[in-house]
Amino acid sequence: MTGTPRGSDTILGVYLSPTLDLEALYGPELSAGKTEVKVLRPEEITEPRDVRFAVCWLPEADSFAAYPNLELAMSIGAGVNDLLDNPGVAPDVAIARVRDPHQAALMAGYVAHEVLHVSRGFAQLAASAAEARWAPLPMQPPEYATIAVLGNGTMGAAVTRALRALGFTLRVACRTSPTDAIPDVTYCTGAEGVITAATDADFVVNTLPLTPKTENVLDARLFAAMAPGSWLVQIGRGEHLAEADLMTALDSGQLAGATLDVFRQEPLPTDHPYWRDSRLRITPHIASDSIPSIVGAQILTTARELRDGLPLSFGVDRARGY
Amino acid sequence: MTGTPRGSDTILGVYLSPTLDLEALYGPELSAGKTEVKVLRPEEITEPRDVRFAVCWLPEADSFAAYPNLELAMSIGAGVNDLLDNPGVAPDVAIARVRDPHQAALMAGYVAHEVLHVSRGFAQLAASAAEARWAPLPMQPPEYATIAVLGNGTMGAAVTRALRALGFTLRVACRTSPTDAIPDVTYCTGAEGVITAATDADFVVNTLPLTPKTENVLDARLFAAMAPGSWLVQIGRGEHLAEADLMTALDSGQLAGATLDVFRQEPLPTDHPYWRDSRLRITPHIASDSIPSIVGAQILTTARELRDGLPLSFGVDRARGY
Repeated sequence: MTGTPRGSDTILGVYLSPTLDLEALYGPELSAGKTEVKVLRPEEITEPRDVRFAVCWLPEADSFAAYPNLELAMSIGAGVNDLLDNPGVAPDVAIARVRDPHQAALMAGYVAHEVLHVSRGFAQLAASAAEARWAPLPMQPPEYATIAVLGNGTMGAAVTRALRALGFTLRVACRTSPTDAIPDVTYCTGAEGVITAATDADFVVNTLPLTPKTENVLDARLFAAMAPGSWLVQIGRGEHLAEADLMTALDSGQLAGATLDVFRQEPLPTDHPYWRDSRLRITPHIASDSIPSIVGAQILTTARELRDGLPLSFGVDRARGY
Repeated sequence: MTGTPRGSDTILGVYLSPTLDLEALYGPELSAGKTEVKVLRPEEITEPRDVRFAVCWLPEADSFAAYPNLELAMSIGAGVNDLLDNPGVAPDVAIARVRDPHQAALMAGYVAHEVLHVSRGFAQLAASAAEARWAPLPMQPPEYATIAVLGNGTMGAAVTRALRALGFTLRVACRTSPTDAIPDVTYCTGAEGVITAATDADFVVNTLPLTPKTENVLDARLFAAMAPGSWLVQIGRGEHLAEADLMTALDSGQLAGATLDVFRQEPLPTDHPYWRDSRLRITPHIASDSIPSIVGAQILTTARELRDGLPLSFGVDRARGY
């Protein structure tokens, strides 16, 4: 064998994103001498029938129709609800996503910062310092604070492990008992696991995947179960949050505040009232991010598995939703 | 045996602090039915010759002279330099201090907050949010950032363990190789351990005890060894910091900034320029605090050990200084 690889050894994909330049992010990794996997922008595709997979970020529903032989849609993020809910993705198209351990570490750091920032009163300390006032605050050992982590996937487990290492008391809501339970962490399973974990919790951290079952999971019932004056950290998806219920819980004082990193509409519009609500800490979907070289390598792996008819290492169970 | 305990079964101590009401803090724990250990305020002592130990917080040098039979001075904090350097504490008086695991957990949380706050750009995110601007920042995996922790005592080890759990790359400067090394942490021992650990570090966290050897350890040489644009987290004692050297390192940009929780003069005076320096994050000695019931229990243990002639569980090696 010399020269170009045989047709059966190559596989063609397409980038589909209206907002991100995926070729700029992942092209260098994907094209580095790996001619058996090729991913092109839509305008570069001359034979749409040859396209067997799509690399996606919030793709538009009508962007899939041009590729009648599409077998796989891969998200460059950890969540895949934007593919599962996309009417343009046919039911027989397989779904895959990225699994980046750095991304979980970044998310754990984000949550640790928010929990420490709130529980140690760093905002109040900064206000005193701005007035040149030496004003220590009373403090409590971290184990006196109970944190409920909703979800025990790659993200939820990393968050739980980090918060436990910081000495907090942890409860985790998950579908089934984990095989790799973290010592001294309480796992709450079953249909009522979320409420059981959240009961009397000082913090609730949402890391659940978005599925029809988890939409609006952060609602009045959950807020009522939490400790009076407690705090929500929302890093799942915007659709997890019942926004009116949050406002009611804040107005009554049942919640002291909330950290929101994800929203039903992103970017959050400039005139949205959240920006001006002093009880909310708003960040622009930065709880974590993926490393392009890792994402690129997982796209390559997935494309090769698809080509060779192998099980997908980064595949998603469509029925389960993650 | 009936009634009051025999003289040899009881032991008398005195509270010595010009600034803290130690009786209010620890009296409840010390007097709860434990009549064999008695600690009184100086004005309550009728037989100064009977006083065998002192419970201290920043005691004045001349406050010891009244007690000729003093055998032990115990600090309610983790650092004992204020006793070791105190001319009022005779060389044959034993020194003890408190060891509170909560205190180490609190300190670990403080450092984790500062490292995350700086490395993730939370100040800049807050400034954008205040202007209702959706402005994500690029982020790097935590393992790309190297943190040098100076000191491997109760505090230093807790800080190292927590930062490692958050995914950062850790180097620890310590006197000798630890027997309980944390996996994936590099230990730098010997006379040059501090500089070795700090070389090219993105953060240096000082948890060293204050001894003649560690005074001004945070100096120009250390700052020059760190990575350009790096950050200092100072939670040891004010005397660890060569203040003029810090200003020079900040002015040149070698250090991007510093978090300072301890100072040569505390409270930090209102007119001190630190308060108005935007490169500094100033907090009022709140990296950690001890829990009164734990401190009280350790005072009781120490008093009983002294009475019974046993080795002191919370004793300090005077020569080593901690």
